[in-house]
Amino acid sequence: MDRIPILKMGQVLLVTIQVDMHDRLAIALEEDLSAKIVSARAKGVLIDISALEIVDSFIGRMLDNIAAVSRMLDADTVVVGMRPAVAITLVELGLSLTGVKTALNVERGIDLIQRRLRESGDDNVDVREE
Amino acid sequence: MDRIPILKMGQVLLVTIQVDMHDRLAIALEEDLSAKIVSARAKGVLIDISALEIVDSFIGRMLDNIAAVSRMLDADTVVVGMRPAVAITLVELGLSLTGVKTALNVERGIDLIQRRLRESGDDNVDVREE
Repeated sequence: MDRIPILKMGQVLLVTIQVDMHDRLAIALEEDLSAKIVSARAKGVLIDISALEIVDSFIGRMLDNIAAVSRMLDADTVVVGMRPAVAITLVELGLSLTGVKTALNVERGIDLIQRRLRESGDDNVDVREE
Repeated sequence: MDRIPILKMGQVLLVTIQVDMHDRLAIALEEDLSAKIVSARAKGVLIDISALEIVDSFIGRMLDNIAAVSRMLDADTVVVGMRPAVAITLVELGLSLTGVKTALNVERGIDLIQRRLRESGDDNVDVREE
């Protein structure tokens, strides 16, 4: 597998990370995601990492990069499903993912994106249809 | 990785298959999914296979099994994101997945589940919140 699928749900893109990330896969994901944000006119990106038992500095940096690029394309990035052990390890590593928003699960992540869109006066986000 | 993550979005469960399925992983997915249908009171299951370049008879049977179990637990199963080449191969193999509904992408899959729920008079499905 050389591509991680990006699922479009209305104005929200959903990515589930299940496999070990390596350099090329991370670069492909960043490229695919930024292209898809533009083509789908997405307002939010949800990255589910519930399958990851270990998040090292490489993945931490990738998440930060994705969030920074998405922000420039006017989309919010929310990381969801982080395991408690992963959060502890990240803090111990000194990686607190300051540029990334987090939510407990996908539903709360979607709520977070919708709330931020409503606050900015753009409340026509709908995960079901365009 | 020994578990495929199951994402809950309201009454719909979403599974993205990205890795090669082997026996134990398929059994774990079937068990996790049936437990989650009950605990989340899910009405629909979406299985995204857009990352799969090859769907063999093993995966075909797994999809059929999941659909049959879900049906008994009162949930619709929709397979989304099938590649054209995969569809051709499946038909050539004589596996036409008769027990499984399909949709082009996640959005249409959610629409399909919602339409079926409305027809059955249970229209309070919402992918954003419970």
